[in-house]
Amino acid sequence: MIKQSLPILYPVAGFRLGTASAGIRKPGRPDLVMMFLAEGSAAAAVFTRNDFLAAPVIIAQEHMGKVPPSCFIVNTGNANAGTGASGLVDARTCCVAAADLAGIVPEAVLPFSTGVIGEPLPVDRLIAGLPDAFAQLSEDGWEAAANGILTTDTVPKGCSRRIDLDGHTVTVTGIAKGSGMIRPDMATMLAFIATDASVDAAVLQHCLSGAVDRSFNRITVDGDTSTNDACVLTATGQSTAPRISGNGANLELLGAAIDAVCVELAQAIVRDGEGATRFVTITVEQGTDSSECLQVAYTIAHSPLVKTALFAGDPNWGRILAAVGRAGISRLDISRVEIYLDDVCIVRAGGRAADYTEADGERVLGRSEFEIRVVLGRGMSREQIWTCDFSYDYVRINAEYRS
Amino acid sequence: MIKQSLPILYPVAGFRLGTASAGIRKPGRPDLVMMFLAEGSAAAAVFTRNDFLAAPVIIAQEHMGKVPPSCFIVNTGNANAGTGASGLVDARTCCVAAADLAGIVPEAVLPFSTGVIGEPLPVDRLIAGLPDAFAQLSEDGWEAAANGILTTDTVPKGCSRRIDLDGHTVTVTGIAKGSGMIRPDMATMLAFIATDASVDAAVLQHCLSGAVDRSFNRITVDGDTSTNDACVLTATGQSTAPRISGNGANLELLGAAIDAVCVELAQAIVRDGEGATRFVTITVEQGTDSSECLQVAYTIAHSPLVKTALFAGDPNWGRILAAVGRAGISRLDISRVEIYLDDVCIVRAGGRAADYTEADGERVLGRSEFEIRVVLGRGMSREQIWTCDFSYDYVRINAEYRS
Repeated sequence: MIKQSLPILYPVAGFRLGTASAGIRKPGRPDLVMMFLAEGSAAAAVFTRNDFLAAPVIIAQEHMGKVPPSCFIVNTGNANAGTGASGLVDARTCCVAAADLAGIVPEAVLPFSTGVIGEPLPVDRLIAGLPDAFAQLSEDGWEAAANGILTTDTVPKGCSRRIDLDGHTVTVTGIAKGSGMIRPDMATMLAFIATDASVDAAVLQHCLSGAVDRSFNRITVDGDTSTNDACVLTATGQSTAPRISGNGANLELLGAAIDAVCVELAQAIVRDGEGATRFVTITVEQGTDSSECLQVAYTIAHSPLVKTALFAGDPNWGRILAAVGRAGISRLDISRVEIYLDDVCIVRAGGRAADYTEADGERVLGRSEFEIRVVLGRGMSREQIWTCDFSYDYVRINAEYRS
Repeated sequence: MIKQSLPILYPVAGFRLGTASAGIRKPGRPDLVMMFLAEGSAAAAVFTRNDFLAAPVIIAQEHMGKVPPSCFIVNTGNANAGTGASGLVDARTCCVAAADLAGIVPEAVLPFSTGVIGEPLPVDRLIAGLPDAFAQLSEDGWEAAANGILTTDTVPKGCSRRIDLDGHTVTVTGIAKGSGMIRPDMATMLAFIATDASVDAAVLQHCLSGAVDRSFNRITVDGDTSTNDACVLTATGQSTAPRISGNGANLELLGAAIDAVCVELAQAIVRDGEGATRFVTITVEQGTDSSECLQVAYTIAHSPLVKTALFAGDPNWGRILAAVGRAGISRLDISRVEIYLDDVCIVRAGGRAADYTEADGERVLGRSEFEIRVVLGRGMSREQIWTCDFSYDYVRINAEYRS
């Protein structure tokens, strides 16, 4: 991981968080978080598109279709995924317990789980931990919750923005977890974002979908999409700013703040990528469309050979070139392709740039953060994604996980 | 790598090989091989479909279109790829030197290079080594050549078959190199196969394309397709067996022998995969077509999380399930999916099989060779590929390569 510290997380009026240690997988570590939304809050969510949906994802989607959510319960240590019919029963049972505690209907509770796939959820321990989490509920609970939702993450991830809407201060705060099995693709790992702005549910969903597409859908650690990815955005409506129900300057301002929070959280996930020592921005320009730019970018980002060269700080640009070449772009004219490491041009006209020196390449790869930029020379599209390198520690973490 | 030793390689009448140490990259190791085909030989070849074609691939394809090949020159230590126009000049220069030595036209020489991408080919050292390789030419030169074409490989790879065609003995012998940057896809790494059968060139090309599709196109180490992949099949026609110019029993027998040699070489590449400790067969059954079976198989084979779990001997089947779920199969009904580790059913009806125990899973993953079998339950197609795990040594090898 690349060192990063948790910034100040501003409370969001009407959004309370409580964290407890329920001993789901290991005793003594925070692993259970409850979040409560003030009455009248709107919520939007996006979920993984993995065909194997974890039980909590199925239940959360089902519940959202019935009543507006008032409560989220999040456990780590167990994903309740690949658990078949009994996994669904377990997720429902937890929702009922949380609803009883809070005096709400079970359908107002959304469950989220993350951790090992394929083992039965320890329902009894989870339920036994709920009263403690409930007792901790506070608008100042963000930092504890950011720690309480982690699995193989080495650092908590959170981000906050304050903006001014017509003279009223509005806050957007979010937390996320994720380190391995990261290629969200159509959703994200677990992320919870809240604002005290007052926003119609449909507008909120539109904001979230766009923001996720520009942030969590633009990162990859290892190309693996989880069965449990979810990102939830809540608007409590408790600020004094006017309600947002359609397009306008205020929606643009709020949308930009939500985008900024999502991008910062997404980048924090990559910086904390399992074993990561480099944070790499991959930009692909002058493609014919967005899809081929992303295809080239992800082929580079997923190449084990590129990722191990990045780890070694070795400007082995031939591996980048080979990845571009196998990305499956139809009728690619390699004589028009250029590749840059930050400001250093390494490939031009299908071969090493005439003025390139190994020393220049090593200078860039010596940095902990840099950009690989590929110019395809065949159109106007441009895409950008974020990824990390591939180190011994990735293998260690994933060979040892569960043991 | 998984231990394997070179079997006896039977000579092929009319096919001579000579190996020398030209000091291309490091002094003192065999790195230059010449192969000579008797007059009247037919040759077939398939090449990488990476858009960035290495210079020798371009020249080899160009020369094959002009005259029947009589000579192959193969160097390791430098791929002459990503070297632009000067790379083409270098490859041609080497062909001219070999042709002068042998008294043939330069277009009868096919060049092959493997090694680091993007550095100029040391043409002078290569040419200086040719007379020594030429002097070594012998029908018994297979084993030396199998060693002379290696890069990060830890063992030489070769395979031989003898068959009877109408009472005449026919030999098929082949050698290959490859260990990393292995996902041949439409061709292979370097492989040279020869037979003394007498076969029309068009029939030979048909044999080779089919065999490659069933062997080298069914393996992956790390998903990376090289810029230099090539597989060449030569038929010298020096056996006394009748000429094969169309379908018939003899073509079937010869085709089966060529298939067997290609499959054994392809599997040897996976067993020697960079850092490999497990040889894994992935079978996907009951798909609607070949393409979706391969899609699922390669998604599993390329998942870093699956590969690190295989390295750990950890039956973390949730990772296999998650990979199936993200393979992008349209309308996959997960309730019909079954997953097996050898004879042990681990997933049934979208969840852990009722009778599965962790001990059963660990027993299978304790083996150095086993099968992951996925039953999709939606059609009649079946595909099989071969892959390996992902270990510390993969990272070490690829982080240290070049340094």
